[in-house]
Amino acid sequence: MSETAPEQQCHVTLDTLVSLCKRRGFIFPGSEIYDGLAGTYDYGPLGIELKRNVREAWWRSMIHDRDDVEGIESAILMNPRTWKASGHVDTFSDPLCDSLGPSRKRYRADHVPPMEATAFEIIDVSDEAAPRKVDDAQIWAPSKKKAKEIYQAYWEKPLGLSGRRVKLEEVAGSTRVGRFSPDDGGLLTEPRAFNLMLTTHCGPVVETAAQVYLRPETAQGMFVNFANVQSSMRRKLPFGIAQNGKSFRNEITPKNFIFRTREFEQAELEFFCKPGEECREGEMNDDQWWEHWVEYRTNWHVRYGLKREHLRFYHQTKEELAHYSKACCDIEFLFPIGWQELEGIANRTDYDLKQHMKESGKDLRYFDAELNKHYVPYVIEPALGVDRSCLAFLTDAYTEEQVRDDKRVVLKLHRDLAPVKCAVFPLLKNKPELVAMAEKLTLDLKKKFHTVYDDTAAIGKLYRRQDEIGTPFCVTVDVDSLEDQAVTVRDRDTMQQVRLGIDKVRGHILAELQAARGTQ
Amino acid sequence: MSETAPEQQCHVTLDTLVSLCKRRGFIFPGSEIYDGLAGTYDYGPLGIELKRNVREAWWRSMIHDRDDVEGIESAILMNPRTWKASGHVDTFSDPLCDSLGPSRKRYRADHVPPMEATAFEIIDVSDEAAPRKVDDAQIWAPSKKKAKEIYQAYWEKPLGLSGRRVKLEEVAGSTRVGRFSPDDGGLLTEPRAFNLMLTTHCGPVVETAAQVYLRPETAQGMFVNFANVQSSMRRKLPFGIAQNGKSFRNEITPKNFIFRTREFEQAELEFFCKPGEECREGEMNDDQWWEHWVEYRTNWHVRYGLKREHLRFYHQTKEELAHYSKACCDIEFLFPIGWQELEGIANRTDYDLKQHMKESGKDLRYFDAELNKHYVPYVIEPALGVDRSCLAFLTDAYTEEQVRDDKRVVLKLHRDLAPVKCAVFPLLKNKPELVAMAEKLTLDLKKKFHTVYDDTAAIGKLYRRQDEIGTPFCVTVDVDSLEDQAVTVRDRDTMQQVRLGIDKVRGHILAELQAARGTQ
Repeated sequence: MSETAPEQQCHVTLDTLVSLCKRRGFIFPGSEIYDGLAGTYDYGPLGIELKRNVREAWWRSMIHDRDDVEGIESAILMNPRTWKASGHVDTFSDPLCDSLGPSRKRYRADHVPPMEATAFEIIDVSDEAAPRKVDDAQIWAPSKKKAKEIYQAYWEKPLGLSGRRVKLEEVAGSTRVGRFSPDDGGLLTEPRAFNLMLTTHCGPVVETAAQVYLRPETAQGMFVNFANVQSSMRRKLPFGIAQNGKSFRNEITPKNFIFRTREFEQAELEFFCKPGEECREGEMNDDQWWEHWVEYRTNWHVRYGLKREHLRFYHQTKEELAHYSKACCDIEFLFPIGWQELEGIANRTDYDLKQHMKESGKDLRYFDAELNKHYVPYVIEPALGVDRSCLAFLTDAYTEEQVRDDKRVVLKLHRDLAPVKCAVFPLLKNKPELVAMAEKLTLDLKKKFHTVYDDTAAIGKLYRRQDEIGTPFCVTVDVDSLEDQAVTVRDRDTMQQVRLGIDKVRGHILAELQAARGTQ
Repeated sequence: MSETAPEQQCHVTLDTLVSLCKRRGFIFPGSEIYDGLAGTYDYGPLGIELKRNVREAWWRSMIHDRDDVEGIESAILMNPRTWKASGHVDTFSDPLCDSLGPSRKRYRADHVPPMEATAFEIIDVSDEAAPRKVDDAQIWAPSKKKAKEIYQAYWEKPLGLSGRRVKLEEVAGSTRVGRFSPDDGGLLTEPRAFNLMLTTHCGPVVETAAQVYLRPETAQGMFVNFANVQSSMRRKLPFGIAQNGKSFRNEITPKNFIFRTREFEQAELEFFCKPGEECREGEMNDDQWWEHWVEYRTNWHVRYGLKREHLRFYHQTKEELAHYSKACCDIEFLFPIGWQELEGIANRTDYDLKQHMKESGKDLRYFDAELNKHYVPYVIEPALGVDRSCLAFLTDAYTEEQVRDDKRVVLKLHRDLAPVKCAVFPLLKNKPELVAMAEKLTLDLKKKFHTVYDDTAAIGKLYRRQDEIGTPFCVTVDVDSLEDQAVTVRDRDTMQQVRLGIDKVRGHILAELQAARGTQ
């Protein structure tokens, strides 16, 4: 799967989402007052409520709703032997090439595939009588036209040739297949492996301190705790261990907003089950559990608001699979940047536990009392990117509607995910009894769900503000309310309003929220 | 405040808690199969539920229950200029001394205060006729007795003197005041500053990559986002920004379980308010807000289960306060290791925002529309250690009781903090209708609160298991249940049992949980 242009167009651009997120307090560039730090973002007041709700929906579905998964939270810093066992020290790398041209730029090898190119020399023909070859300047390109573009974009100015007449001349017999810099036309070195783990040092002095890694995935925290969790929680197969937390990867080119960042949040499950040959009649084997998890996770995405037609499944081929992996399915989503991986679900077999047994010398086999034998469980791993998940929910929630003469922007987020559940407005802010009534109602609602009070604009504008951040309910206290002790409750999606006794509002909204969650 | 022996004894030892936490799946040493990594711990299935509940109780009290605080979540990796502005690059350090003795050990200067000592030489007197001075061996100690201890503990074996007769001889006139290694008796160097921030590198190659720090506190995330939050959320003073997340400090000696670790979790608020001179009649100034926050945070700790008599307040003296700080109160708790800081509440004045204005060149002043002027707000900062908070709640919840002939261990955790809210047991596991009834009830309860099912032991043992992890309610389905559709609900603390219709159980427990939270 590569980040190519989408066949199908997303209904919203990334720029639109980035701008909404910044303006309305969802997501800001990290350290923005210092012009940022590449590949980091800060979640603002509404963004963190959304993210907390996504985490919570995941935790509930993966741990609390089930009786076969335990949650944990392992440290970001782990003993470095963990990453030796997992293979990350040796193989978690991107192949990089350096330009031998003057830019010395570095590229991911898969971003600069080999192609046929020819070398061109730059000839200064300002003085027609004495054409002069510009020393050492050589541009590799697939055509003269392309070479010219590179010359104009990269060479002309630094060489002091602006305004001078120049021609490019093919170096006879130079045509060859290789990797070339699209920026300066330089030859590229052979790809070299560049490890993606961030490192740090723990201990009093760098020389004697242990080099440790910032974990590149949360998964290994589950493997190293397999025996501790199994014995303290008296677990029998099949059972899973899940966690949610930060991971770090030194991406060469962090990009596309929160889609690819150097610091990111994962939500991963390692589900330990019996390999086929240990299963008795009627027991699910690892293949069946893998199918279960692909379906279970797909349903989760759809339940919380992704459109099923915006999801597709990419099954890795035998050639693409890691050598230890039996199957891997990428759930792809139609992001504003095109179809991209949202979650991967792999059958990792017994590879990880065996690797840790070898490296640690500890026995991590499972004792099957019924079969009276020890064996190493197989593992199914659904691995979700939490930031990507937030971006996906924002994408499919984003809606523009024509309401009479106005464009209405509304985030149709699932009610469980909406940052704010209810907003309360007094219709007139200069009537103290009315304001007091609205404030009292706000306090009462706050006990049960996140509610805000707002009186800083006219009612139409207040509605639009809440629509744009996805608040499912708005309650307006008006002049009649003082008489009839009733208020108007407006639904975000239908814009329908109902008049309810003020003492009925809490129950009404609570029932609607629970219906959305299915926990009546 | 130093980590000295407590005047008052805690009712539980750290060993008891560490052992319970390991055995019952609360907290494991990090990377344990690789013999750990100093200063890291992993939260197990029950520990992470407790921690999530502590986070949630904090978030609710600090953000959702109030209308003047916004939550955020900023990245762990920040632009390094942040730490230049905050002063961490220049001054966030411990003074360290190295031993000039053969151990080359490193000490925190405050752990090895200067003292009067004398140098002793080691004389080998195995051959009485020819006593032999052991070259270069010199032990500094306050007494000959102490020198002998150091000799036996450190020198005897490596020097190959085991079993030989040796005497220690004072070096005439050597007595002086200085710092000495308690391990090898070596002189110590003068203290040198050692920065406590962990560093890493982002970008493709170490040489060209930016050195960045793992944040040593979450607070700066609020300061750099002050303007973004204020404008996107249309905030007027006073208002706060709060967050919860991981921080890292390269502690020389991580110790005392989760009390002092290199990777730890914070929950911090920066509350921006008007300095006294900008306040109008009736508005609270920074001093009053500081008092408010000391009281508000104290009440939180007590509300969620800390005994008030196990809390005390240490007000930093003028000499101890940071130069920019107007006041700082440490809320100390009687941990198993003695009285130690649990939370600090500081009046940081306008220091941080001014520093960031200077370093970034951005205007971070607040525009006060009523006074029609710009000024820099003052900041009150309550900073809680989340791991310490978990340890404190575990400490005061831990209870041993005599029940008839048995010792009962029960964690009397606040119901909101308890990892599991309810456990359901079938009295007989060989009666399928009874098991089915218990399982159906479990599913129904799970919709509303975290419930587990257990049938792996006799009923008395099942109760004890749940007591030990702090589960407030146990429900037993017995043979009569099939007849009368009623079950027994047992209260953790009183051990009282009530018989309830099976359709009343959910409502009963829900009401009790809401009463504990005050959200009926």
